[in-house]
Amino acid sequence: MVWGSILGWKARSRGASTLLILLKPDATEPVCAEVVQALRALGLSVEEVPLPGRRAWHVVDGPSVPRESLLRIPGIDRVVPLEDVAAPLVHGTLADGPRTISVGNARFGGGHVSVIAGPCTVEGREDMLDTAKLVAAAGAAVLRGGVFKVRTSPHSYQGGGVDALGLLAEAAQETGLPFFTELNDPRQVALVGDTLDGVQIGARHMQNFPLLQEVAQLGKPVLLKRHMAAEVDEWLLAAEYLLDAGNDRVILCERGLKSTGRHVRYMLDLGVIPYLKRRIGLPIVVDPSHAAGHHELVPDLARAAVAAGADGLIVEVHPRPQTTRCDALQALPPDAFATLMADVRQLAAMGGRTVSCSVRAVRAATSSPSAGSSDLNRSVGA
Amino acid sequence: MVWGSILGWKARSRGASTLLILLKPDATEPVCAEVVQALRALGLSVEEVPLPGRRAWHVVDGPSVPRESLLRIPGIDRVVPLEDVAAPLVHGTLADGPRTISVGNARFGGGHVSVIAGPCTVEGREDMLDTAKLVAAAGAAVLRGGVFKVRTSPHSYQGGGVDALGLLAEAAQETGLPFFTELNDPRQVALVGDTLDGVQIGARHMQNFPLLQEVAQLGKPVLLKRHMAAEVDEWLLAAEYLLDAGNDRVILCERGLKSTGRHVRYMLDLGVIPYLKRRIGLPIVVDPSHAAGHHELVPDLARAAVAAGADGLIVEVHPRPQTTRCDALQALPPDAFATLMADVRQLAAMGGRTVSCSVRAVRAATSSPSAGSSDLNRSVGA
Amino acid sequence: MVWGSILGWKARSRGASTLLILLKPDATEPVCAEVVQALRALGLSVEEVPLPGRRAWHVVDGPSVPRESLLRIPGIDRVVPLEDVAAPLVHGTLADGPRTISVGNARFGGGHVSVIAGPCTVEGREDMLDTAKLVAAAGAAVLRGGVFKVRTSPHSYQGGGVDALGLLAEAAQETGLPFFTELNDPRQVALVGDTLDGVQIGARHMQNFPLLQEVAQLGKPVLLKRHMAAEVDEWLLAAEYLLDAGNDRVILCERGLKSTGRHVRYMLDLGVIPYLKRRIGLPIVVDPSHAAGHHELVPDLARAAVAAGADGLIVEVHPRPQTTRCDALQALPPDAFATLMADVRQLAAMGGRTVSCSVRAVRAATSSPSAGSSDLNRSVGA
Amino acid sequence: MVWGSILGWKARSRGASTLLILLKPDATEPVCAEVVQALRALGLSVEEVPLPGRRAWHVVDGPSVPRESLLRIPGIDRVVPLEDVAAPLVHGTLADGPRTISVGNARFGGGHVSVIAGPCTVEGREDMLDTAKLVAAAGAAVLRGGVFKVRTSPHSYQGGGVDALGLLAEAAQETGLPFFTELNDPRQVALVGDTLDGVQIGARHMQNFPLLQEVAQLGKPVLLKRHMAAEVDEWLLAAEYLLDAGNDRVILCERGLKSTGRHVRYMLDLGVIPYLKRRIGLPIVVDPSHAAGHHELVPDLARAAVAAGADGLIVEVHPRPQTTRCDALQALPPDAFATLMADVRQLAAMGGRTVSCSVRAVRAATSSPSAGSSDLNRSVGA
Repeated sequence: MVWGSILGWKARSRGASTLLILLKPDATEPVCAEVVQALRALGLSVEEVPLPGRRAWHVVDGPSVPRESLLRIPGIDRVVPLEDVAAPLVHGTLADGPRTISVGNARFGGGHVSVIAGPCTVEGREDMLDTAKLVAAAGAAVLRGGVFKVRTSPHSYQGGGVDALGLLAEAAQETGLPFFTELNDPRQVALVGDTLDGVQIGARHMQNFPLLQEVAQLGKPVLLKRHMAAEVDEWLLAAEYLLDAGNDRVILCERGLKSTGRHVRYMLDLGVIPYLKRRIGLPIVVDPSHAAGHHELVPDLARAAVAAGADGLIVEVHPRPQTTRCDALQALPPDAFATLMADVRQLAAMGGRTVSCSVRAVRAATSSPSAGSSDLNRSVGA
Repeated sequence: MVWGSILGWKARSRGASTLLILLKPDATEPVCAEVVQALRALGLSVEEVPLPGRRAWHVVDGPSVPRESLLRIPGIDRVVPLEDVAAPLVHGTLADGPRTISVGNARFGGGHVSVIAGPCTVEGREDMLDTAKLVAAAGAAVLRGGVFKVRTSPHSYQGGGVDALGLLAEAAQETGLPFFTELNDPRQVALVGDTLDGVQIGARHMQNFPLLQEVAQLGKPVLLKRHMAAEVDEWLLAAEYLLDAGNDRVILCERGLKSTGRHVRYMLDLGVIPYLKRRIGLPIVVDPSHAAGHHELVPDLARAAVAAGADGLIVEVHPRPQTTRCDALQALPPDAFATLMADVRQLAAMGGRTVSCSVRAVRAATSSPSAGSSDLNRSVGA
Repeated sequence: MVWGSILGWKARSRGASTLLILLKPDATEPVCAEVVQALRALGLSVEEVPLPGRRAWHVVDGPSVPRESLLRIPGIDRVVPLEDVAAPLVHGTLADGPRTISVGNARFGGGHVSVIAGPCTVEGREDMLDTAKLVAAAGAAVLRGGVFKVRTSPHSYQGGGVDALGLLAEAAQETGLPFFTELNDPRQVALVGDTLDGVQIGARHMQNFPLLQEVAQLGKPVLLKRHMAAEVDEWLLAAEYLLDAGNDRVILCERGLKSTGRHVRYMLDLGVIPYLKRRIGLPIVVDPSHAAGHHELVPDLARAAVAAGADGLIVEVHPRPQTTRCDALQALPPDAFATLMADVRQLAAMGGRTVSCSVRAVRAATSSPSAGSSDLNRSVGA
Repeated sequence: MVWGSILGWKARSRGASTLLILLKPDATEPVCAEVVQALRALGLSVEEVPLPGRRAWHVVDGPSVPRESLLRIPGIDRVVPLEDVAAPLVHGTLADGPRTISVGNARFGGGHVSVIAGPCTVEGREDMLDTAKLVAAAGAAVLRGGVFKVRTSPHSYQGGGVDALGLLAEAAQETGLPFFTELNDPRQVALVGDTLDGVQIGARHMQNFPLLQEVAQLGKPVLLKRHMAAEVDEWLLAAEYLLDAGNDRVILCERGLKSTGRHVRYMLDLGVIPYLKRRIGLPIVVDPSHAAGHHELVPDLARAAVAAGADGLIVEVHPRPQTTRCDALQALPPDAFATLMADVRQLAAMGGRTVSCSVRAVRAATSSPSAGSSDLNRSVGA
């Protein structure tokens, strides 16, 4: 356990930014002098910048002081940061190009596409096994299933807890797929963390920083969903908490944003994919199920996500959705999922990417004559 | 500790809703029969409703089944709930009229208005004491100060932790004010919960349900901030978690919503005050500081909030904002806070409401000849 | 008519801004030279600014070139405008302090508060006259009523047109109130513009610039509603079109913004009032009716608006709302409007402001013994 | 000209909806009787519906009365419409399956994909001709260019007007491409409408209903952009104005929605494509340029749009963006556009669709030996 973080002891800071400080146009000479004095009192080293008609200073060194505080110094008009230092660890992940993160046989990023699939919630052994088998057969590379549910209402089904986790692990073993589940309480980490292949952080807990710090200690892949109202920088800074705590096996997951629209559950932000690909090296997957909110819209959004460059998908699938207690409307039926997987392989191939699948699928593919290869690839092309 | 909630065991449900189920206009007789059969298989008791031109059923009894699941039954077109059962415990609080929640000398709701004030973050003994004294003198009834900060970036100041909590408690004792602080990790509850007069749940943790369940056990007043992107029902359902866990001493706090605007930090939703006053009995306070994001806008928004019916305010105040490490821009200077308090008293009086103040302020007021009363009122009029 | 604007001939520009241009950190010397050459080719005069570690230029003179175009010059990283020149004419209105705009007896701004009231739509002589009389009696200073309606659906009632305008004018004359109506087609200006006391521009037409340019020619007060998704700068720039076309009798009207919430029709942005009061001199009124969308919420929002500093209100009132064909839910009944007017007078008085009323109300007030004054004020205090 | 619409005479209504009216749970028998009487007084035919525990009526016939007005009848709790009648004409377009709309050689919808391309603004003969030639060569099927610009600021370049329109028409003739331009004033229709191949309605004018009614009279294809804050129903109802005025050659265009994000200019709503494909027969194209706001993000969003089922794209292209006066940042360079067109053909082929190109491109393709066909197809496959 990370007692320091529980008690909020941490106080260090990183990345003093270079600032240009502009004075108000009517600032008098004494005011200018007082501003310089106030800046120096904060430990900042300042240097005047010759700008015609405006007094300006350039902060060249010193501790990190919030811009907001500087704006409370009388006479200062604007504080312009000349460098963007938000989430430096996350931005540093692009230094050597896009990264590939592996979970079992599945690879995300760096030219690899993987699909995570399964039921919204683990509700019973038979449903769980059936779903696991069908998604594995269709080409999913990771199994998912919720056991600690984050439900808007205390009167909704809250998930099956550790018992359900056992069923999920059993289905994973049965199909040879690694599995993810969502954790939402830092105390769950010590209790069940060791049994998971990867941890999912749900959208509502994206800024639950004590949880992130505890989860990071596991050293396992973390799928970090974007909150449905998070700016990109807020999302990257949540990932920064994971990297800052020593875990850089982070897969970002876009799952749609709140909007005024009611035709979709959430508005999927696909522009964020090419935007981030130019800035960070971490893989980005898309959850079309929660975004669409309706199974009929899922395949088109999933195809769009892969066409936009997503490194993977996380999709809810269920063979008998009308019997489920959570998110029934968005669960893909088996045949639609199989069709989608075929499309994903074709779209990935268009961009020269490969789609991961399970070890057994690879063995089956390579042992069949039509595969034309005796090579055990961990990923197969379209 | 509430191990059940950590492990997600809870699975009961409440409030089966009455539904009207409409079939698709082209549903054939066999489809109708299958729908009825499917509904009955779910344990629902159904009765046909004669609507000209449409086949419809009325669900009159049975377990709670999500509407989404019903929509996956082939042939069903729409499911119209005839009763609103979201957050029944919270809606039940209006049964006996608006409630008054007391914290020390401060009263919120039922004709009482209280102002919570203090620094954003507890940063040093002198600042904390100075701020506490000045807000008490101006008429604040509760002291606030952050010690476990929820910061978007891991590189920002994370708060002073338990040491800072000691300074906050000392300032509270010095001024006779009760105090609130924010908790953001369920493990903090056992460690420091006993020392607090009330717990603040920050916007980002509004849907941190394990935290809410743990905090509820303290039995102390909980100030539940609305997430900056929360619908009203999501906010009420977060409160429902507290009530469901046995704590109905809940004060709701509107603190502004995300919007596309940049002229204010968050868009304050004052319409929610009269909306909720007609539906629930819990007090509602407003945080104009985080909404405005700039001290110059705080007093007008604070006045608007009281004019709209708010049962209180929570305001950030600091005598030396340029030296602070968090939210410097929105901290009210002492004179602006004193002016605001005078306005709050006048506005509250317009609506026949009284503004709480500290025990010492009451004593000072009642011992002066102009008070004209030997009665120790816990609330004083304008 | 303004044929130039119809045909889009206008091409002049105003307000070349002062820019700081930062090169990419890895820009080589030849790239720097090419950037300078490219800037000079655009007619810009540039001067190097010594910033440690970064090459930067300061544009000191030249024609207005969009920042976006500069960013397409290879090697340029950021373009930082050092002065804000959006809407210079509107920002210039504060030069001599807040302005007062008069419409008949009503005054808006500069310490004066006026209430515009009337039905959503002019639907019949009797309803129109009844409404006009009751709002005048309660203290409204301007009459409103829609005749050219902007309806989301072509199948909704589209307004009574010029016939209805006659009824509105008759009711205005009968009560001694000036009147506003909304125009939404530039061709309406020549047809009916002369008969109006003021023109209302609806939210959906805020950026209908040909309409604004035509309406500006009338030289009459223009109530410019903010679009329900407009940023503040977009709103001010729409006003800038009016000022640029020679009409500075502009009253801004905040009427609520689209949000994801369904508890109110639109989210009222009251923070914009103190924000703008510090920047521009034009009066700002608030429309609580469209924001609330429900009559029960209107009075509290209206009070909040006046407490936040609004220079007036525009309120929908109807004695028989269930018979109306538009926005019935938000129409205040007569008694609620009278109560609201009393509150508005009290709130305005708190801030030392006066509330305008009709000439006849002034005469009635001054001729009654209780008024205690023989003075014919055009505005009366609380 | 459509004088009736200018003067707002139109008052007919369409589509009385079937309603279920629920009384308040505590409504007494006399209240029930009064409700029935009030409903009948509005000309509605009502019939009681037996719902256990609630009094309810079913409105079976009568004139269209707004739901809002019914809610002002005391005793009524909820009004539930049992049928969705918004935009009946637009919804009727799916009756015979998806439609194909042709503009010159370009076909939109019904298995046909076309790309509209060109500069943001027509600024000079050479730029216009160069751009037209390069987009035609790469495979665009329609030329675009703005001449009557809708600019947020009156101080921005307002477009070249009729002179620029001549240059656009010349470039279109030179390349054999049909062309679209945006109109934004109903008076422009009579002046220049005859010279256009199709009319573009910009996002800001989506609800400029007098403009829509006037443009509809031309009988030419209308590209109706969705307002950046429009709900789907608002967009469809704007299209309904065009169909209601007799023009059903409507191409809908999604161009992104306002959001709080700053990493893209607007948030592209791709979920609306599969949503609408299931409900209406009109083609839907996507504008990735305005959505992205930056040329580097355009190709990925464009690919995503076609993968999601879009019937076409409208893309801004410019060979020398740094010299342009409008939207320079989002203009695609020629090579990026050519690459995109190749991808569009491949993606369309994946779904069995064909991509239109210009007559000359068809001729060139069919006269070359590799085309392997002497047939003059108006569309060519991937």
